[in-house]
Amino acid sequence: MEQGLTGAGSTSLKRRKGLVIVNTGNGKGKTTAALGLLFRAWGHGMKVAMLQFLKSDAECGEHLAARRIGLEVITHGSGFVRRPEDIEKGRKMALELWEMAKDKVLSGQYDMIVLDEFSYPLKLGWLAVDDVLDVLRRRPPTLHVIITGRDIPAGILDFADLVTEMREVKHPFRQGVVAQKGIEF
Amino acid sequence: MEQGLTGAGSTSLKRRKGLVIVNTGNGKGKTTAALGLLFRAWGHGMKVAMLQFLKSDAECGEHLAARRIGLEVITHGSGFVRRPEDIEKGRKMALELWEMAKDKVLSGQYDMIVLDEFSYPLKLGWLAVDDVLDVLRRRPPTLHVIITGRDIPAGILDFADLVTEMREVKHPFRQGVVAQKGIEF
Repeated sequence: MEQGLTGAGSTSLKRRKGLVIVNTGNGKGKTTAALGLLFRAWGHGMKVAMLQFLKSDAECGEHLAARRIGLEVITHGSGFVRRPEDIEKGRKMALELWEMAKDKVLSGQYDMIVLDEFSYPLKLGWLAVDDVLDVLRRRPPTLHVIITGRDIPAGILDFADLVTEMREVKHPFRQGVVAQKGIEF
Repeated sequence: MEQGLTGAGSTSLKRRKGLVIVNTGNGKGKTTAALGLLFRAWGHGMKVAMLQFLKSDAECGEHLAARRIGLEVITHGSGFVRRPEDIEKGRKMALELWEMAKDKVLSGQYDMIVLDEFSYPLKLGWLAVDDVLDVLRRRPPTLHVIITGRDIPAGILDFADLVTEMREVKHPFRQGVVAQKGIEF
């Protein structure tokens, strides 16, 4: 795993490089993998936070679990935009959460920050890719930022260090099984 | 999400159906997504466990985190088999862990069990796919079993309810960044 490294002096900075990680694709596991990373980092005593741009419901398992251990999860979304009157509300909430995210990313207080379902405000044009890249570039050099969501814009994929596509191979909803506690939420 | 369901009577069993979930592929996120599901289920008060068939190191972030909250993670592997003399040791440990896994799966005490890096003993022929399927078939109907690993045998993919392929799109090791705490372990 350490091929290409020539010595401790030249690797110390690389060792501590904060990564921009993207979990995308049409499959399951984008948010749960981010949650697993958060939990693992929390195990190492790192300071972590998850900001959720889509969910409106704060009774999901991750919130209950996070609350039990004092892990910071902030949910500030209006759910999927279905009606025209939802747009302004959704946009306002997304922009508010993005301001909060920027503060945290630039604060120097965190080791890992997850921007969950972040493609949603980007796809709807509520946030500009260039503004996001500007903040990512200015982040502390050791901060890991994890971005999840379907259809992440190419500009962010290009900038990311690690991109994984979660691809649906087989899904039980097709077989009449509904979303259930502990699996979907 | 509930298309294809005709009424409460016919769905109540389906709603509680324990799923066999496979996270496979060459990308990141197979174990972390399983860990995220465990953590989320734990948030719902479910009884969960993770059995790790490959790792020999118990100081990874997931163990530290799990220990802090009393979440059951059992690691009983010899690491990758590199030398002939490792084979017998690895095989013995895998069979011991599989006995433990069977007991837990069939005990009726659990809501969710993760078999992490489970393709490893299967690929090496230490466990037979048919024996695994037999245990999965006999499990309590509401138990979720999550299997992770590259190259999961077709017999298990066919049996699974949900299969996700984690596909590597871009990886930082290619750019000289080494494995680091909180991300890789």
